[in-house]
Amino acid sequence: MKGSSLGEINGAGDVKKLDAAQLTALCGELREYILSVVSQNGGHLSSNLGVVELSVALEYVFDTETDRLIWDVGHQSYTHKILTGRREAFRTLRQREGLSGFPKRAESISDPYDTGHSSTSIAAALGFAKARDLRGETHKVVAVIGDGSMTGGQAFESLNLAGELDTDVLVILNDNSMSIARNVGGLSRYLSKLRSSPAYTGSKQAVRSFLSKVPLVGAGLIRLIETMKDSLRYIMVNGVVFSELGFQYYGPVDGHDLKEVIAMLEQVKELKGPVLLHVVTEKGRGYPPAAEDATAFHSTPPFDLETGKVSTDSAAQAPTYTEAFSQALTGLAAEEPRIVAVTAAMADGTGLEEFRRRYPSRFFDVGIAEQTAVSFAAALALDGYKPVVAVYSSFLQRAYDQLIQDAALQSAPVVFALDRSGLVGEDGPTHHGAFDLSYLNHIPDMAVLLPRDEYMLSHMLRLACGHEGGPVALRYPKGRGLGADAIEMLLPRLGGAPSWGKGQMLRTGSQVMIIAAGPLVYDALVAAQTLEEEGLEVAVYDPCFLKPLDRDGIWEAARWCNMTLTAEENAGTGGLGMAVTQLLTESGYHGKIRNLHLPDEFIPHGSQKELRKRLGLDAEGMMGAIRDMCR
Amino acid sequence: MKGSSLGEINGAGDVKKLDAAQLTALCGELREYILSVVSQNGGHLSSNLGVVELSVALEYVFDTETDRLIWDVGHQSYTHKILTGRREAFRTLRQREGLSGFPKRAESISDPYDTGHSSTSIAAALGFAKARDLRGETHKVVAVIGDGSMTGGQAFESLNLAGELDTDVLVILNDNSMSIARNVGGLSRYLSKLRSSPAYTGSKQAVRSFLSKVPLVGAGLIRLIETMKDSLRYIMVNGVVFSELGFQYYGPVDGHDLKEVIAMLEQVKELKGPVLLHVVTEKGRGYPPAAEDATAFHSTPPFDLETGKVSTDSAAQAPTYTEAFSQALTGLAAEEPRIVAVTAAMADGTGLEEFRRRYPSRFFDVGIAEQTAVSFAAALALDGYKPVVAVYSSFLQRAYDQLIQDAALQSAPVVFALDRSGLVGEDGPTHHGAFDLSYLNHIPDMAVLLPRDEYMLSHMLRLACGHEGGPVALRYPKGRGLGADAIEMLLPRLGGAPSWGKGQMLRTGSQVMIIAAGPLVYDALVAAQTLEEEGLEVAVYDPCFLKPLDRDGIWEAARWCNMTLTAEENAGTGGLGMAVTQLLTESGYHGKIRNLHLPDEFIPHGSQKELRKRLGLDAEGMMGAIRDMCR
Repeated sequence: MKGSSLGEINGAGDVKKLDAAQLTALCGELREYILSVVSQNGGHLSSNLGVVELSVALEYVFDTETDRLIWDVGHQSYTHKILTGRREAFRTLRQREGLSGFPKRAESISDPYDTGHSSTSIAAALGFAKARDLRGETHKVVAVIGDGSMTGGQAFESLNLAGELDTDVLVILNDNSMSIARNVGGLSRYLSKLRSSPAYTGSKQAVRSFLSKVPLVGAGLIRLIETMKDSLRYIMVNGVVFSELGFQYYGPVDGHDLKEVIAMLEQVKELKGPVLLHVVTEKGRGYPPAAEDATAFHSTPPFDLETGKVSTDSAAQAPTYTEAFSQALTGLAAEEPRIVAVTAAMADGTGLEEFRRRYPSRFFDVGIAEQTAVSFAAALALDGYKPVVAVYSSFLQRAYDQLIQDAALQSAPVVFALDRSGLVGEDGPTHHGAFDLSYLNHIPDMAVLLPRDEYMLSHMLRLACGHEGGPVALRYPKGRGLGADAIEMLLPRLGGAPSWGKGQMLRTGSQVMIIAAGPLVYDALVAAQTLEEEGLEVAVYDPCFLKPLDRDGIWEAARWCNMTLTAEENAGTGGLGMAVTQLLTESGYHGKIRNLHLPDEFIPHGSQKELRKRLGLDAEGMMGAIRDMCR
Repeated sequence: MKGSSLGEINGAGDVKKLDAAQLTALCGELREYILSVVSQNGGHLSSNLGVVELSVALEYVFDTETDRLIWDVGHQSYTHKILTGRREAFRTLRQREGLSGFPKRAESISDPYDTGHSSTSIAAALGFAKARDLRGETHKVVAVIGDGSMTGGQAFESLNLAGELDTDVLVILNDNSMSIARNVGGLSRYLSKLRSSPAYTGSKQAVRSFLSKVPLVGAGLIRLIETMKDSLRYIMVNGVVFSELGFQYYGPVDGHDLKEVIAMLEQVKELKGPVLLHVVTEKGRGYPPAAEDATAFHSTPPFDLETGKVSTDSAAQAPTYTEAFSQALTGLAAEEPRIVAVTAAMADGTGLEEFRRRYPSRFFDVGIAEQTAVSFAAALALDGYKPVVAVYSSFLQRAYDQLIQDAALQSAPVVFALDRSGLVGEDGPTHHGAFDLSYLNHIPDMAVLLPRDEYMLSHMLRLACGHEGGPVALRYPKGRGLGADAIEMLLPRLGGAPSWGKGQMLRTGSQVMIIAAGPLVYDALVAAQTLEEEGLEVAVYDPCFLKPLDRDGIWEAARWCNMTLTAEENAGTGGLGMAVTQLLTESGYHGKIRNLHLPDEFIPHGSQKELRKRLGLDAEGMMGAIRDMCR
């Protein structure tokens, strides 16, 4: 990078040393660098290409080692990372032990707050601002939040709080009219209007000059003019919604005009109280394939820079669980007109695009608003429909209370299709679906199904859609299914279609029983085959349901074995292992019991395969555990 | 009730048969009736007195057996219940097997959606509206939501969604400028401005007539007038924030002017699309003690109608856990200036009023916004402060995701003072703190403390505030502590101040070990004393911490006993019992283990004592379980 502007940037603040021409050059080099790394490592592309100039301007105007800069969601923090001492480390993006794809306090003092889920940044900014005020310090606090994240309820709660707290905070609304998909809702329409309205200053002047010429005749008219003056800020100031909540609104400003963004930031930096700066950016800016299809490049696997095409293995591949879900759901929907689908701004990621295309009137995107998704679906269910809410496991955490209060308490037959359960790989701890079995299993009336492969997912979705007794969650992982060949090889005869609340004995054996959740069943079968060669008889049981748990089935399966091993890609508390242990203990089991699960810590990023291997959640891990128990 | 208007109201729709004079009389009788029942049974008073006319008007204009009427939070549904076939049953309000204090589908077809927690009603209304649209029906859907509930993020998510969905829905904003306490935030100020602005119709006329007289000179001015016409709805229509989100805004209307409310409802009933009607009411209306102190009468125990005073037993009483917390916290805050306090609109209920009074700059009320409370506190903690978030157990469910992502993942040392854990009694299933041990225990880095009495609460709060390693939750129940005398009698010597991560052996005994969570420890001591007389040696162990669990302490305590009983006022999955069972089983325990806990169902309302007795979560229950194990 010698001779380049980027080569000059070794730490926070170095941007300040560059002149205008160098800054412009820097933006180009940053885009190239981000494209080069993301095309190799995979990652969030569109959002990062959209905020290059904004990130450079923020680093230019603020001091990110003293000021607090919080990136909402955080998947758009690549430029920020490169500019703050992580230029070379950026090559390790999303790799195990490498840079995280999200802000991380552990990486840099310029990352004051870890993000990953949407809409938390304003609340965090207010916390930092009040900490500053209490200490009598004067540094700046800035939150950068997308218009998509603004549809999440917490963002509004925090805007409302900002109107209450007497503190200086700058909220930058990064408006690209997208969340991950195109945005929905009244707010979206409102922002669109702001973007297209005439510039603020001009009309203000014109109104003043106009008012000075209005003839004043009669007391009533004078009073009316008073009223109008009060209301004039509605005419003069755009952003009235934000103004009414107590913010000073500035913008919209072109987020790719670096000079303009810097000038605006310099101007608002010294203002008192809550300030909202509206910056308009384009997702995927500077890379035509991403600009044209920002959703596809929201989060991308490695791809070819020339063509924008994702490289696929030449071997025939099994469908992903998402694809299997998509196909199964559209099939069921053709049979059952009561099925409707709900997403929280993730139609593409959760596999609902095909459903949306085929059944537009039965499809609902509620915005980044998981809480609303669940209550909305509960009402649809109580009124005779069969809503399927497709959502990532870690994002449904947002609606835990609504799962209890709206869905379960009313026995509303909502189906939750929980994608990205278990380890998700490169997105790391904020996105691992590490807790769903634990946060679902203790909810009365909630059913929890554990499809072991893509075919079982299809069967179980049908079961779930036919269940009228309360909410049902199906949890399945990120990535590809097993594929027909592998299934045929590992499970040639046994198994078959699931029945409600019934587990399945997949392999018999008299010494060790493995009870595994979801696809880990296949790891168990592999382990059992290998251990057979060592002279150990290992049985494999698929509980199919965590709830209702097939207590009789599990007891009958395990009671004859001296050792029982459970395995689940979930936290150790509150999931399958503890439930089986309690069941067996209560029933008088005297064999050894051991539970494999995620450790009681946040799991960093890395490929799914690496993480599973390291945590012992694969066939090797099961074999090791069983050999250990045999000693 | 013969000869009265109320006597005519036997079912939904009967209100429609009354004439204007009878309707007015009815409102008076309703207030008297509500006062008479609530003064005897306890309940939510202020909010119900505030919506008498609104409820009557809704019943008059809508058909609540066909239309869908959803009361947000639902504690203001008393008049609605009385008017819809539950007039006599209302005398059993909040009593076991009697009427619930919240809307319940199980009670009446006029209750289409169970509520209890804030801000869900608009999402539910939209779900009902889309179900109606899909079926091609034409009934009305109405949500009634307070301005306090409007500060909850989900309400905004749903307003935003309404702006997207092409459906007819009426949102009634019941604006009393209070949630439970006085409201906070930009929205609150905005609503206050709307309330005080001149009436809508008058100014609209005046503006029109004014405009027709403005001289038009020159092209620039003509263009300006065009711009102004566009902006004129800002002048003519209040409620621009709602308008911008896609609602037709009407009001404000005086919510105690029955005729006016009925007229307005008739008018907006037939409008298309999302409509927001702004109704201004007074909490506690018609009962001076409640009108003057609406917060005290938000949720009240039985009281004397004449004086408004709550009757107290003449015997000296132990402080409530809330009072003990309040005192302990203000004491600690005097020593440690880094302690700050955060509430989500519940300063009074959670015992923070004294802190607010003494340390106003260190006190933060974020509105009904638990998500924001947690993220805001996490940032304060990461920036050197020691936030104590005081919140009801069931309400913290709203911020489960933020507990994981903002607090635990960043090891932010936030203290959560979880009031109303376990069974809360008369408020029933939406308010029981039945799940906190389950939703906290699997979160990495989260500590969970179990104070067994009000003194332990004080000790543990000090421990928690001194802990720098991550978030800490203390869970304690609703109601009075044990009192010094009872503690002295049951626990004369052992026990003492807690140490981090250490349990305490409170009573030795060689046959049975009881491991109990929180105040159930005292039930265990009583059970142990009684069983001793039957010749059974029963030990009692207080784990003090669910997390980190004192594994060595528990193993050492239990390994010598043939039977181990655990007890907790929490769901059976993911709490103390499963953790102890797993620990003992892993360690090679061969005795019997039994777990007492809440059943896997939603627990109805009833007094705490009745519920505990019925569910076996008291000394009697423990004795029964132990005798059972002995067989």
